[in-house]
Amino acid sequence: MTDSSTNMRLKLPIVCFILEIILIILFGVLVEYDHDTDARDFHNMSHHDYENDFYYRYPSFQDVHVMIFIGFGFLMTFLQRYGFSSVGFNFLIAAFSLQWATLMQGFFHGMHGGKIHIGVESMINADFCTGSVLISFGAVLGKTSPIQLLIMAMFEVTLFSVNEYILLSVLGTKDAGGSMTIHTFGAYFGLMVTRVLYRPNLDKSKHRNSSVYHSDLFAMIGTIYLWMFWPSFNSAVTAHGDDQHRTAMNTYYSLAACTMSSYAMSALTAHDGKLDMVHIQNAALAGGVAAGTAGEMMLTPFGSMIVGFLAGIISVLGYKYLTPVLEEKLKIQDTCGVNNLHGMPGILGAIVGAVTAAVATKDVYGEGLHDVFPLVAEGKREASVQGGIQAVSLAVTLGIALIGGLIVGFILKLPVFGAPPDTICFEDNIYWEVSLRSFITNSTSHDQNQNNTHLHSLDNIDQSVH
Amino acid sequence: MTDSSTNMRLKLPIVCFILEIILIILFGVLVEYDHDTDARDFHNMSHHDYENDFYYRYPSFQDVHVMIFIGFGFLMTFLQRYGFSSVGFNFLIAAFSLQWATLMQGFFHGMHGGKIHIGVESMINADFCTGSVLISFGAVLGKTSPIQLLIMAMFEVTLFSVNEYILLSVLGTKDAGGSMTIHTFGAYFGLMVTRVLYRPNLDKSKHRNSSVYHSDLFAMIGTIYLWMFWPSFNSAVTAHGDDQHRTAMNTYYSLAACTMSSYAMSALTAHDGKLDMVHIQNAALAGGVAAGTAGEMMLTPFGSMIVGFLAGIISVLGYKYLTPVLEEKLKIQDTCGVNNLHGMPGILGAIVGAVTAAVATKDVYGEGLHDVFPLVAEGKREASVQGGIQAVSLAVTLGIALIGGLIVGFILKLPVFGAPPDTICFEDNIYWEVSLRSFITNSTSHDQNQNNTHLHSLDNIDQSVH
Amino acid sequence: MTDSSTNMRLKLPIVCFILEIILIILFGVLVEYDHDTDARDFHNMSHHDYENDFYYRYPSFQDVHVMIFIGFGFLMTFLQRYGFSSVGFNFLIAAFSLQWATLMQGFFHGMHGGKIHIGVESMINADFCTGSVLISFGAVLGKTSPIQLLIMAMFEVTLFSVNEYILLSVLGTKDAGGSMTIHTFGAYFGLMVTRVLYRPNLDKSKHRNSSVYHSDLFAMIGTIYLWMFWPSFNSAVTAHGDDQHRTAMNTYYSLAACTMSSYAMSALTAHDGKLDMVHIQNAALAGGVAAGTAGEMMLTPFGSMIVGFLAGIISVLGYKYLTPVLEEKLKIQDTCGVNNLHGMPGILGAIVGAVTAAVATKDVYGEGLHDVFPLVAEGKREASVQGGIQAVSLAVTLGIALIGGLIVGFILKLPVFGAPPDTICFEDNIYWEVSLRSFITNSTSHDQNQNNTHLHSLDNIDQSVH
Repeated sequence: MTDSSTNMRLKLPIVCFILEIILIILFGVLVEYDHDTDARDFHNMSHHDYENDFYYRYPSFQDVHVMIFIGFGFLMTFLQRYGFSSVGFNFLIAAFSLQWATLMQGFFHGMHGGKIHIGVESMINADFCTGSVLISFGAVLGKTSPIQLLIMAMFEVTLFSVNEYILLSVLGTKDAGGSMTIHTFGAYFGLMVTRVLYRPNLDKSKHRNSSVYHSDLFAMIGTIYLWMFWPSFNSAVTAHGDDQHRTAMNTYYSLAACTMSSYAMSALTAHDGKLDMVHIQNAALAGGVAAGTAGEMMLTPFGSMIVGFLAGIISVLGYKYLTPVLEEKLKIQDTCGVNNLHGMPGILGAIVGAVTAAVATKDVYGEGLHDVFPLVAEGKREASVQGGIQAVSLAVTLGIALIGGLIVGFILKLPVFGAPPDTICFEDNIYWEVSLRSFITNSTSHDQNQNNTHLHSLDNIDQSVH
Repeated sequence: MTDSSTNMRLKLPIVCFILEIILIILFGVLVEYDHDTDARDFHNMSHHDYENDFYYRYPSFQDVHVMIFIGFGFLMTFLQRYGFSSVGFNFLIAAFSLQWATLMQGFFHGMHGGKIHIGVESMINADFCTGSVLISFGAVLGKTSPIQLLIMAMFEVTLFSVNEYILLSVLGTKDAGGSMTIHTFGAYFGLMVTRVLYRPNLDKSKHRNSSVYHSDLFAMIGTIYLWMFWPSFNSAVTAHGDDQHRTAMNTYYSLAACTMSSYAMSALTAHDGKLDMVHIQNAALAGGVAAGTAGEMMLTPFGSMIVGFLAGIISVLGYKYLTPVLEEKLKIQDTCGVNNLHGMPGILGAIVGAVTAAVATKDVYGEGLHDVFPLVAEGKREASVQGGIQAVSLAVTLGIALIGGLIVGFILKLPVFGAPPDTICFEDNIYWEVSLRSFITNSTSHDQNQNNTHLHSLDNIDQSVH
Repeated sequence: MTDSSTNMRLKLPIVCFILEIILIILFGVLVEYDHDTDARDFHNMSHHDYENDFYYRYPSFQDVHVMIFIGFGFLMTFLQRYGFSSVGFNFLIAAFSLQWATLMQGFFHGMHGGKIHIGVESMINADFCTGSVLISFGAVLGKTSPIQLLIMAMFEVTLFSVNEYILLSVLGTKDAGGSMTIHTFGAYFGLMVTRVLYRPNLDKSKHRNSSVYHSDLFAMIGTIYLWMFWPSFNSAVTAHGDDQHRTAMNTYYSLAACTMSSYAMSALTAHDGKLDMVHIQNAALAGGVAAGTAGEMMLTPFGSMIVGFLAGIISVLGYKYLTPVLEEKLKIQDTCGVNNLHGMPGILGAIVGAVTAAVATKDVYGEGLHDVFPLVAEGKREASVQGGIQAVSLAVTLGIALIGGLIVGFILKLPVFGAPPDTICFEDNIYWEVSLRSFITNSTSHDQNQNNTHLHSLDNIDQSVH
């Protein structure tokens, strides 16, 4: 079932070792503890222990961490024969990306005397950047080798950091939960990559591009964790105090409203009035994406619920009507439908953020305006200008994502990376040890008393296939 | 497999949209940020960031959130063909209930100038109220349509809030972890609902009212999360400082002792001396329920362990001997055995709370008495009176739950809500898209090399069934 | 399938009840709230609520708790027919161990006027000690009765506490994340126990000593939770402030590097260049183990990554080449390969800790030296001496673990504990109610329309087997 081109015996170790050794060397040269993680620095300052940023952000960090590794990883296990790869490649490219993102973001966010200073906030930001890569992974799921994914991650982390730098540092955009920087960027980058990697004969693997009962339950583990911890995601790097508190609460209500509209739309549009697991697994999360920019603003729970409500509707409609069109007309094979979960809701979130920023007033925010819109509070920028800049930022993000995805897509087409053939997509067995017996043994040989005829015949199959 | 009455194409969207639009309007009219989430208010006060209630309660909130969505959701996946509904309907009614509870509890807990003020504590309380609805869901699991569940949730949240108001605000009862307000209320409300909805021919679906190997493992995910985070549940809204700390610790030891007695009783009572997954999945949690009222008091780990130990014994005995009697004699079809996990342990917890309150002294609590029993500390009430009020509160809770469940049960009997027929209970396929292939494909067609005869015959089955 | 010797009807209840009643009595006599959990004490002191240790450590405690109950429990579900036992016995022995550890550690760590004072830090330490027992459980997985496991836990917790006392209190060793006290101790204790319990005819159960597709996915839940929360594990009991912060961050980078080298080595060594789930599930965690001692020191992310990188390589090589040798030559049947995940990486971590301690200087640590190496900061000990003591501590740990495991192994050989016969190892059905139907029903009888012939024949099998 494997041939030499997809064999990873040498390719994967070489790529992993080279990347990791480069990372280690760069960390040795460039990275230092920040003031809150350095034994000498923290004790030099007259800080109380409880003022260490660790206590403000570490619980949120761990929630984000769960979203990245369990949430994204298990959400993608819905495919019947791609569970190992979904969780396993998610694990691999996330472990790589968070290290590389530490360097890239540290470089762009500003060095301190030639050194990158790191602590819990940089860890959250590294996880965020990783999330963007995993969104793109969703678009190409089942159709790429682990080496392609690592190469994609390397380039995407870099471009993510450039885009984030332009938005947050150059333009002064606000995007704490990453509607633009994470979701829109990751989705359209991935969609462009999968467009370039278009496989005309993918329907030869069509019978594996669907779920079975248990794989849908595994996927729900991912969904529910993403849903529960999204309030922590959006609030993880907002300012201390009311800002983190408010962002988490806005997101909580946005998600609740989104869940209601997702179920409604699923029953309305799906076959025979029955609910469709694809919608529930994905669309119910769109409310978190759409609250990513405006969540820290005085959006109010009322406003958040409207946003979430709309996001759920848009997302289900996307899965039902847009995804087939994208595949047939634009040749975009979007395995997880990231356009519906991250793309369109991300754009919605960016627009909501722009509007909410444009109407911000000192009257509503009081002294808190310094936390949310520092440039407006300092009189350097009108609120309406801030709103305009937010809108421009969306365009910048889309531009960098699409052009970046185009270029990276062509790089990934190089035939040396061991991509699977069209006939063996959505299949763990090509990159993982999977005994054929795995899929059958449950119904045989579980008891000494039964005869082993069936199993023996399987042994023969095993041997003939390997 | 579906007929027009159970078809959700129009019914479910209409109900979801109407409910959500009403929620959004009411939030717009009634809900405001509280002092710790409002940008203007928090900065007006001379608070340090670390004094924001977010940092005291948000980690506990997220643990509670996991219990509600993963814990309850997956605990109910033990049924072999009802996993989508268990997790999925749990998700839907929880998303609705937490919004509705925010309004109802805000209304009863006291408005501020006509407005409901919300923050992390109200979010926890909304999740608590949702937990009560999910307990009732456990009693009717597999026998109700999603519309019935939403209607039930609407009424139950309302009655929960009335009962909670009477206990906490009128009577001055202490019940931080909700032995009475959450567990006893949810269990007996649900048991009365399922009594009214009695199905004489339910044994036609009997072959699906049981677990299979993997569904029991999924259910253990729910069990273990509930077990681990119960200390957070009971301590989430107790007073800051030693109170949260003590409550978490008491609950931790109560649960550990309960696990030991549950295993002992399971081996003692179950078939052939073998452990029964039903007991382990449920009874081991009774120690958390039973520590819900007294957990914040000076119960001591010693007292907590005795309580947990007894709760485990009672719970297993209930599953083994009481549940069959309830079903045969009282016609109470309690799918998850909520009487054994939440009902009787809740009553035990209420009694333990009453006794512990009655013996409270200034000598033991010191200045901490103001946190735990403010009325006693202020000399407005004797400790023994507090104990009596706690006992009265149990009676009030039982009364409201039973009468409420009776009325709501009759409402749910209206034939318009699309309940499943007796022959298709405990079955996802009636409300969810489930390919028949789901249950078979694992053992076929996973390999290109195998012939597809079996699968083709399944396609025919698929077509003939839909 | 059961005979009288493995029947748990009386044995297990008796053992559980006796153990729990002893625990309750000892708690009643010996255990008291500490200053941060006692209502009177905490209010007596002029502490702010936010200075309660609860807020510094409870989020980390809950992460550790998840590792113990979900992490270890599900990691071991990889066996195809041992899921109930993996999660269920893990649950039982952990619930027992954490209570017993509270007493043993409290006794050795120093009593206060004849009383053991407990709070969140003692809860974390009890969970840590429990973790060590669960590591040993991994070595004997599938081959022991629950009674044997409880007896093993009772002795191991005691010896763990002795070893921990010698290291931390007598020698002044630093080992916050337990490379030595938890991982090395648990691994070599368990390896010696499994050596003594050597089963020459274990290959009669060989066909069950492997995974199936879904069991590997369940195991990945355990792996990922362990991986994500390891930073909390290593930092849970380090000093407040920069120490917790730094430890978490060092561990985070060690794990990321370890994941990269584990994937590389798995592809390099496994069959046909395909990744092996055993490596991914286990070796990727070795970076957390190896950072257990030095994580709180000024190891730097650079140093942490080197350590993690090496740990991953060692661990995969161990699974590939050492485990078979241990089994064939030394008769050590190590079901989970704890030597590769906890044993050798634990020794690596101890060595790294010794070296890092030996080169510690006031210049690097500043005032923070008091937190990390108090004896060195106070001038009572040279850094190089501290390093030497760290190395001695590893030898002490290995000695106590091996001798303890030898003795306990022989105790467990007593024929009264109901161990399974060689032919029925790795099998839930011997101690748990498992319907044979469990493994077959998925592919039959899921629909009213299908005939029930197959199921009826299974009913007959059920009856003939029980």
